[in-house]
Amino acid sequence: MRPVCFLTDFGLADDFVGTCKGVMLGVAPGLMVVDLTHEVPGFEVAAGAEILQHATRYMPAETVYLAVVDPGVGTSRRALAIETSQDALLVGPDNGLLLPAAESLGDIREAVALTNPDYHVHPVSNTFHGRDVFAPAAAHLASGTHLRELGENVDPSSLMRLDLVEAHQELGKTMEAGIISIDRFGNARLSLMQEQSGLRYGDLLRVDTGDGPMSVRYVETFGSSKAGELVLVPDSHWRLSLSINKGNASQALALRVGDRVRLLPPKGPAGA
Amino acid sequence: MRPVCFLTDFGLADDFVGTCKGVMLGVAPGLMVVDLTHEVPGFEVAAGAEILQHATRYMPAETVYLAVVDPGVGTSRRALAIETSQDALLVGPDNGLLLPAAESLGDIREAVALTNPDYHVHPVSNTFHGRDVFAPAAAHLASGTHLRELGENVDPSSLMRLDLVEAHQELGKTMEAGIISIDRFGNARLSLMQEQSGLRYGDLLRVDTGDGPMSVRYVETFGSSKAGELVLVPDSHWRLSLSINKGNASQALALRVGDRVRLLPPKGPAGA
Amino acid sequence: MRPVCFLTDFGLADDFVGTCKGVMLGVAPGLMVVDLTHEVPGFEVAAGAEILQHATRYMPAETVYLAVVDPGVGTSRRALAIETSQDALLVGPDNGLLLPAAESLGDIREAVALTNPDYHVHPVSNTFHGRDVFAPAAAHLASGTHLRELGENVDPSSLMRLDLVEAHQELGKTMEAGIISIDRFGNARLSLMQEQSGLRYGDLLRVDTGDGPMSVRYVETFGSSKAGELVLVPDSHWRLSLSINKGNASQALALRVGDRVRLLPPKGPAGA
Repeated sequence: MRPVCFLTDFGLADDFVGTCKGVMLGVAPGLMVVDLTHEVPGFEVAAGAEILQHATRYMPAETVYLAVVDPGVGTSRRALAIETSQDALLVGPDNGLLLPAAESLGDIREAVALTNPDYHVHPVSNTFHGRDVFAPAAAHLASGTHLRELGENVDPSSLMRLDLVEAHQELGKTMEAGIISIDRFGNARLSLMQEQSGLRYGDLLRVDTGDGPMSVRYVETFGSSKAGELVLVPDSHWRLSLSINKGNASQALALRVGDRVRLLPPKGPAGA
Repeated sequence: MRPVCFLTDFGLADDFVGTCKGVMLGVAPGLMVVDLTHEVPGFEVAAGAEILQHATRYMPAETVYLAVVDPGVGTSRRALAIETSQDALLVGPDNGLLLPAAESLGDIREAVALTNPDYHVHPVSNTFHGRDVFAPAAAHLASGTHLRELGENVDPSSLMRLDLVEAHQELGKTMEAGIISIDRFGNARLSLMQEQSGLRYGDLLRVDTGDGPMSVRYVETFGSSKAGELVLVPDSHWRLSLSINKGNASQALALRVGDRVRLLPPKGPAGA
Repeated sequence: MRPVCFLTDFGLADDFVGTCKGVMLGVAPGLMVVDLTHEVPGFEVAAGAEILQHATRYMPAETVYLAVVDPGVGTSRRALAIETSQDALLVGPDNGLLLPAAESLGDIREAVALTNPDYHVHPVSNTFHGRDVFAPAAAHLASGTHLRELGENVDPSSLMRLDLVEAHQELGKTMEAGIISIDRFGNARLSLMQEQSGLRYGDLLRVDTGDGPMSVRYVETFGSSKAGELVLVPDSHWRLSLSINKGNASQALALRVGDRVRLLPPKGPAGA
């Protein structure tokens, strides 16, 4: 039996999460469920997608990912199960939530729409596919049911993709990234991963958030910077975060989720 | 080993829930516990009873229900275990919390008061029977101990019953229901289940909450109504909810938990 | 396989707890994890230590304790695993968090610093040793790895110890205790355990919180006292709590965590 890694925006105040687990345990007695988080901000598909993708680094290889952040429930958006070339399995709505995680787990080998009513809990509500469609599908997959039994094949290239600002490098010098979230301390988390950046601790560079370039230093921890200093620092998801030590970078620089940020080499002696 | 479905009003800020699970795991190594919710509003027995009853639709058939919403802890209220004609088992205080769920799981075959100290954790505190009395009882039942070993037989007709406003129909035409809870959006959840109502989506009827009848339409989702329209809509528990699309029905109509609501046929051509 | 009892100050809003569980399940498939609480107030090591110690009364004997309240993460504080004479195992930072629990579970037989990189998740971050160092260590111990494989032996007498106000008795008459926490109702929880106190319900004594002695009665429950009465009452952790029935003792008496409280015998006929 594979374990299930479970992410939603349901919160824990209601019985939604518990009811989904009851459904799963009825399908697959003894199933292990790891609650990744149920506090994804309501309907924030991109935030959920980032957390799910990050989790693929740490979950057991045989994990079935069940993710439900589903503002389109009750509309015609498809319900999906995906299998990757690394034998990973993912279940959730076709709104971009699953794709970054799936692509971290290999190429998409096969995708199906969860249309087979034999694997639904009946009656199927209009508002709670987590319980009636997604949870039973994940539990059936965890206990060995083949993906193809759950519904009709879907062309992987037709899956909805989030329009995220991907980090990329220009000319091997300038990097561009998007702000994917801002935490309660005002740290702006960038789409740029530490390993993509090629930076080394101590590197000095310039950052432009729209108002012209400012100096910024890449540091390992806040402890390596001065109070009030603008820094880039890796966060627990190994992303670069634009931060002010003991300050609030997002307030100071008027940053918002979705903003583009350019990272430039330091101004050289010739004004480069 | 049966799984345990666990509902309380303990919240997750303290170690209460975790301590109960430690006790259960000590009695029954390997026990699976499904947390239904631990955020029942403090001491609200009726709200807990409704959630527990609803869960019986979705939990595995062999589940042991452990429910602790217990304002009477430390008084002479009895601690109970109940077995139903469908072999379901329920554990909790004798304050009405268990009865709706038990009756959804068949007739009550046997009930005992949890008076046998061999199945308590000692010393038994005056304030935390969840840990000292209920959790060990549920774990013993889950691992096969017979109900009768846990204490003295109790006459099922003596169990405390909540005085809920049950939905019922008059003359096959007028229905009466009670408001069992109001959610943060102001939707008033009625004691009337969708299947009891006999209504079909699109039906037009009248609702009287005490100030005379108003028109109301029964719709499948908010998407099928106009902003500001008063509607009846099924919620995730399959209960009818009196709601205003993009508005707050309970504020607009001054509704409170416990209020009675009458549903009448639409006004006919002859003013019926 | 031993179960893991897991306590942190991570909260449940983020994916920190879920990620640690994913790591543990990867090391030890089928591992049972009991969440004791993840809402220890941020960085409050003493509060976490008290909850962990209390839990040792209720968890299965074979439990591995994994506790992470770790303000010193990223500094040179050691990461520890401890084995006691009762074969209990504990994992966490060397900041005093584990010691009260360890000492409730026998003498410390062996302690190691978690320095063996074979048992870390790589790369090891500077800010999240819960995921990269502590969780894998706990899971390896739960599945039978010997403590000594995880790193270098450490002298048990060198482990950091919290400077708590321990309760003690003077002359068999006067007791002194510290306030270890204050709950949201203003009840001041003392370091004095019910069993240490030697008190019996109904005993009348005097309490001095710094402004001279006041009468206080030791009662079993608030139900045995009058509204507004100052009482000592045992809490769910079997500690004595200085409380005012239907009032706020900490506001009324200006009490703070860390304050010392003296309990004196009642004033005798001769003014003793």
